[in-house]
Amino acid sequence: MQIEELDTPAVLIDLDVLEGNVRRMAERAAACGVALRPHGKTHKLIEVARLQRDAGARGMTLAKLGEAEAFAAAGFDDIFVAYPVVGALKARRALALARRVRLAVGVDSPEGALTLSAVFAEGGNSLDVLLKVDVGYHRVGVPPEHALETAIRIAELPGLRLRGIFTHAGQGYAAETPTAVQAAGHVEGATLAQTAEELRRAGLAIEVVSVGSTPTAPHAMGMAGVTECRPGNYVYHDASQVSLGTCGLEDCALTVLATVVSTPAPERAVLDAGSKTLSSDPLRPRPGGFGLLLGTRSRLDRLSEEHGVVGVDAADRFRVGQRVRVLPNHSCVVSNLHDRVFAVRGDRVEAVWTLAARGRVQ
Amino acid sequence: MQIEELDTPAVLIDLDVLEGNVRRMAERAAACGVALRPHGKTHKLIEVARLQRDAGARGMTLAKLGEAEAFAAAGFDDIFVAYPVVGALKARRALALARRVRLAVGVDSPEGALTLSAVFAEGGNSLDVLLKVDVGYHRVGVPPEHALETAIRIAELPGLRLRGIFTHAGQGYAAETPTAVQAAGHVEGATLAQTAEELRRAGLAIEVVSVGSTPTAPHAMGMAGVTECRPGNYVYHDASQVSLGTCGLEDCALTVLATVVSTPAPERAVLDAGSKTLSSDPLRPRPGGFGLLLGTRSRLDRLSEEHGVVGVDAADRFRVGQRVRVLPNHSCVVSNLHDRVFAVRGDRVEAVWTLAARGRVQ
Repeated sequence: MQIEELDTPAVLIDLDVLEGNVRRMAERAAACGVALRPHGKTHKLIEVARLQRDAGARGMTLAKLGEAEAFAAAGFDDIFVAYPVVGALKARRALALARRVRLAVGVDSPEGALTLSAVFAEGGNSLDVLLKVDVGYHRVGVPPEHALETAIRIAELPGLRLRGIFTHAGQGYAAETPTAVQAAGHVEGATLAQTAEELRRAGLAIEVVSVGSTPTAPHAMGMAGVTECRPGNYVYHDASQVSLGTCGLEDCALTVLATVVSTPAPERAVLDAGSKTLSSDPLRPRPGGFGLLLGTRSRLDRLSEEHGVVGVDAADRFRVGQRVRVLPNHSCVVSNLHDRVFAVRGDRVEAVWTLAARGRVQ
Repeated sequence: MQIEELDTPAVLIDLDVLEGNVRRMAERAAACGVALRPHGKTHKLIEVARLQRDAGARGMTLAKLGEAEAFAAAGFDDIFVAYPVVGALKARRALALARRVRLAVGVDSPEGALTLSAVFAEGGNSLDVLLKVDVGYHRVGVPPEHALETAIRIAELPGLRLRGIFTHAGQGYAAETPTAVQAAGHVEGATLAQTAEELRRAGLAIEVVSVGSTPTAPHAMGMAGVTECRPGNYVYHDASQVSLGTCGLEDCALTVLATVVSTPAPERAVLDAGSKTLSSDPLRPRPGGFGLLLGTRSRLDRLSEEHGVVGVDAADRFRVGQRVRVLPNHSCVVSNLHDRVFAVRGDRVEAVWTLAARGRVQ
C-alpha cells in the first residue's frame, strides 16, 4: 500500500528515520559506557521497543503500571516504572508484576513508599525502588540537599531495596538556547552523581544513577558517575526538539498526514487534524503554533478538536482536498491519541502498528 | 462498588447531574419549538446518546464519519456529520453509511462537495448536505454574504440535496461576560435565519436552520427561523462553562478522581493526572490553569503527561495518598483520552461505560 491510499488524518512513522534515531542514541550510550533504558511512553509500541532492544537497550522505562503490564505481556522482562507508585491497589499490581518481570519503581517520599513496603513485606517479597531527585525541574522528587535523609528512611522500610536514584531534567525543555540545554544536562548528570556519592558515603548501596530527557540525555550521560539514561522522545523527535536544537527536521520520524478540508479565506486553510489528532501541547521552548506544515512556510495557528487552522504564509497556497504533512509539537502525546500508526518507508506503507500501551492512565 | 474502591486516575460521570443536564436542554429546545440534535463528540457513549434520545433528541450530530459509524452500529439511524466531508475514501464511506441510516453531512465549498457529488450521483443516490455558514468564528464556513452564491453552486451538483444551513458560534467561548455570550447566541441565530430567508427567496428549499455550541445554544435557539440546535458539551459541562457563566459547579457531571502522589514542597502537590488524562486544553474564556480541585482553593498550574502540578493555596493542605476530584477545563477532550468512564450516583459506581466512539479521527 502507498501513503496516498491512506485516509486522513493518519500518523506516519518513517522507518528509516526511526531506525537511525534508535541506532544513534544506542551508540551514544555505548560510547559513554551507560545503560540505555529508553522510555516507552513516546511510542507505546511493542515493535519500536523491540528495535530499541535489538540495538542494545537494557530494559525499558515506563510511566504507569498499566503501560508496564502491556509491555510485560509482550515479553519485556526488565522494567522501571519511573513514577511514584502510590496506594494499595497499585502496590498489589506492582507485586503481581514483580513476580513476572524484573521490576523497579520510583519513590520520592517515605509516606508514598509505605504502602509498597507493607504489601511487599507481607509475603516476604522485595521490590527494587529508585529515589527521584529533583535537579531543577520542580515537579516531583526530593531536592538534592534532602536526598540523604529521605533515602535513609526509605532504605529502612521492609520489603523495599533502594537500588538507585534517578532524575528528569524537564527544565531542558524551557532552555532558550542549545548551550542552555547542554548546561542543564551537565548539571543533571553532575548533581545526580554527586548525590549518589553522598548516599554511598552514608553506607547506601546506590548501584543505579539514572538520568532522563532527550534534550539533556546526550550531555548528562557523559558525566562521570552516571550509569543509565532514559530518553524517550528521541525515537521520533518533534517540532519542539527542532526548536530546541536537539535535532533537525530530517530527524523527525513521526508526522501526521492530513487533508485540507476548507479554504474559506486567502489567509486561512483548515485541516482535518485538530487537537484530537495533534493535542494542544504548546511548542517548546517558546509557544509558536500547533505544528509545522512540512514543505511550506505555514503553520497551525489554532486547533479545535477536529480542525487545524493554518495561518497561510504569503508564499503558500492550499486547495481543498490537498494532502499535507504536519510535524507535531510533541510526538509522545500524539501517540496516546491514536489506536494505530502507519510505518512507512519512502512512499510505501510497510506495516500498521497497534499501540499496545495507549491510554493506560493507571 | 464504591468510588473509593476505584484506582486512579478515573473519569467519573455523575448520573444525577447528567440526567438533569439532558432533561433541561431538551425542555429548552421543546419550549423554543426547535429540534435538538445533540453533538455526541462530548460523550462518545452509546449510553448517553440513549438518554438524550429518550429525552426527546431528534437524531445525533457527530464530527467524523468514524464516530457516525460507531453510533450507527448501535442503532442510531438519523445522523448529521457536521464537518466538511472531503475526499473519495470518505465519500465512499458516506455512501455505505447513507444506505443504513438517514445521513446528512456538512459542506462549505463546491470544490469540497464535488467528490461527494460524483460518488453519490454515479449510482443514482442522493445525499443530504447542509452548508456551513460562518457567523463570526472564522474557522470553516462561508461568510453570510457569500452563502447564496455557494449554495446555488452546491445545489446544482448532482447526487446532492441541499437541505439546510448550519453554523457553530465557537466565538462564544471567547466571550468575556455572560452578556457577550448571549449576544453571540442572538447574532448566531438571527444571522443564520436571515441567510436561510435569502436562500429561500432565491428558490432553494432550506428546511434546516441549525445552530450549535452549548454557551450560545439557549440564546440562539430562541431566535425566529431557527429549526434545530446541536449543543454537545451541556451533558457534562466543565470548568470553562463555569467560567463563561453557562452553568454552576453543581451542573458539572464529569470529574476526574486523582491521587496526590507527591508533596515535594509546601506550595506544590502533584497528582497522578496530567495531560494524558485531562488534556492541555486551556481554560476559556481566559487561561487560568488546567483544572479546578473541587472543595479546595487550589488549581492545577501545569501539566506534563502523567503529572498534574497543583499550586497549593495557603488555605489548603495535601498529603501523599489523598484523593481529590478535578474539574477539567474541557470535558469533550477528556472523553477522547479514556477507554472507559465510571457512571456514579452519590458514592456508588453504577456502571462502567466503554467509549464506543473514542479515537475515531477519520
